[in-house]
Amino acid sequence: MSRPKNDTFLRALLRQPTDYTPVWLMRQAGRYLPEYRETRKRAGSFLDLCKNPSLACEVTLQPLARYNLDAAILFSDILTVPDAMGLGLYFSEGEGPRFERPLKEEWEIRNLAVPDPNLELGYVMDAVSEIRRALDGSVPLIGFSGSPWTLACYMVEGGGSDDYRKIKTLLYTRPDLLHHILDITAQAVTAYLNAQIEAGAQAVMIFDSWGGVLAHDAYKTFSLAYMRRILAGLIREKDGERVPAIVFTKGGGLWLEDIAASGTDAVGLDWTVDIGAARRQVGDRVALQGNLDPSVLFGSPEAVAEEARRVLDAFGPHPGHVFNLGHGISLHTPPDNVSVLVQTVHAHSRALRQQAE
Amino acid sequence: MSRPKNDTFLRALLRQPTDYTPVWLMRQAGRYLPEYRETRKRAGSFLDLCKNPSLACEVTLQPLARYNLDAAILFSDILTVPDAMGLGLYFSEGEGPRFERPLKEEWEIRNLAVPDPNLELGYVMDAVSEIRRALDGSVPLIGFSGSPWTLACYMVEGGGSDDYRKIKTLLYTRPDLLHHILDITAQAVTAYLNAQIEAGAQAVMIFDSWGGVLAHDAYKTFSLAYMRRILAGLIREKDGERVPAIVFTKGGGLWLEDIAASGTDAVGLDWTVDIGAARRQVGDRVALQGNLDPSVLFGSPEAVAEEARRVLDAFGPHPGHVFNLGHGISLHTPPDNVSVLVQTVHAHSRALRQQAE
Repeated sequence: MSRPKNDTFLRALLRQPTDYTPVWLMRQAGRYLPEYRETRKRAGSFLDLCKNPSLACEVTLQPLARYNLDAAILFSDILTVPDAMGLGLYFSEGEGPRFERPLKEEWEIRNLAVPDPNLELGYVMDAVSEIRRALDGSVPLIGFSGSPWTLACYMVEGGGSDDYRKIKTLLYTRPDLLHHILDITAQAVTAYLNAQIEAGAQAVMIFDSWGGVLAHDAYKTFSLAYMRRILAGLIREKDGERVPAIVFTKGGGLWLEDIAASGTDAVGLDWTVDIGAARRQVGDRVALQGNLDPSVLFGSPEAVAEEARRVLDAFGPHPGHVFNLGHGISLHTPPDNVSVLVQTVHAHSRALRQQAE
Repeated sequence: MSRPKNDTFLRALLRQPTDYTPVWLMRQAGRYLPEYRETRKRAGSFLDLCKNPSLACEVTLQPLARYNLDAAILFSDILTVPDAMGLGLYFSEGEGPRFERPLKEEWEIRNLAVPDPNLELGYVMDAVSEIRRALDGSVPLIGFSGSPWTLACYMVEGGGSDDYRKIKTLLYTRPDLLHHILDITAQAVTAYLNAQIEAGAQAVMIFDSWGGVLAHDAYKTFSLAYMRRILAGLIREKDGERVPAIVFTKGGGLWLEDIAASGTDAVGLDWTVDIGAARRQVGDRVALQGNLDPSVLFGSPEAVAEEARRVLDAFGPHPGHVFNLGHGISLHTPPDNVSVLVQTVHAHSRALRQQAE
């Protein structure tokens, strides 16, 4: 009996009818919440928090206590996999994630190995199990990973980048080496997501945060091809239930057709996409997740409600929409605006369905 | 007699047949050239260089001395207009452009006034005249401005931004004030571009560098609508010759149809767009400019040639293509790769046309 009491999110991902449009928010457990900042203080560093299953569980549940969200997402970082490969993840204040040992030499690339997710990443699996127990069948739990391309960006650049000069130089001088990194990383991500599913994740999401910096042909070759390979290797049924997958390429709106044909159940959309046009393009082949501009949450409560209704109206009363932001929630978000958002999504999407009947 | 000896660029913008595909590069006069760095050292600051017509002329011509480029572009900055409005443009090392007096209060916004381009921006007109004289009818000169939305981003944020929080907060709390900024700025840009045309610019380009951070509806309302207004107010014929306009929204590939219908002669495309698909979408309604990933120039000469051919092949042998990068050239570009690029574009596009005959 693994289906949660509120299975609206899972049903929407599988394009089944729901009474209302489910909503969750990328980075919903995060710094905009005072209770998160409290726990984080107790944990020490961000990475200490990720690596402590009971604190990771605590922060995962915090937004669910405040808001009527339809899914929980594992609290973790997208860079745990390269960390487990030995690159030494750390977070420097104001600079975001960095690696102590980025990939610089050919031999370092040749030496990359697929980590055992139940050993090197056992802390993540412990968190997944603990969160599932704590959720007690209320809402589904989403597991996730970074995409191979996005992980490779950090592994080669050593951190965030403005121009992705190192990895693009590699791409346009030694594509063979880049393919090797992506191949190993895709194997690692497949094993990692499958271990999360075994530990209790009821849906999985691949965050391709940096796919949008690639030229369109390069996107297909160096990002989408490897996500497709992961999707083909995922456990898709667990305890008799389908485990849906979501692919989100930020800046990938132009490639919607290709992403929709990748073997994913759902495609995440950023806010530059007209979700109504996207829905007309993909029909009911995949579900769509998104796509409110996170900056709308800096606006007045009226603007939040209006812009949320605009997204719902654009998608229409069809099955197959999971409401979300088009990117992670900002730490500057007033928490009360999130209440307005969640309430509006639920109320307006119910009303839309009633009008359509 | 204002038509230059090499009018390939102007003909391509007007979708007239040309023997080969013309090429120029955004930011072609810039820090990747050692001779530019020399002149810059003599000038003092970047802004001193922009404000000195004879040095601005000198650097404008530098890439033309090295490469067989088909157009010159005025050396200037996109932020001269808000500087002329009194915001106090300066450049801090490593931080990019900043304003001393960004727009913070309603009264500051209400006080904005349209500068007289021949007074406050006379140094730009002097540079345009001097460059035209120096070009001596060899290749056409492109004038340019930032788009109202892009200028407003800097005017409100006070500089570059990761999340555009200030301007988006304004957008979602006080859209009336943002519209006021955009209205005044659009009037200013129209007058500024018309003054450049009067001074000798033979084509003009509007750089909407930050349009791509807007949600799709907001893009139409807060960026495209104001560019459309500028296009409607531009001088479109001078000395019996059409003065073509190019609109470039970075990250605007999803909005190609709307941009193509804005009244522009040509649309600039960044490298995420498949230029072949774009050409099929717009047909011969507008010319297309672009769209090589500037990072390709970090690659091997073979990769540069291959990727350039890929863009040309995708567009096909039709009239109406101006080859360019999908964004400004990086300061880390090896100058020799630019030679390879320009030569490849000319040779391969000639060969394509011969095959098509």
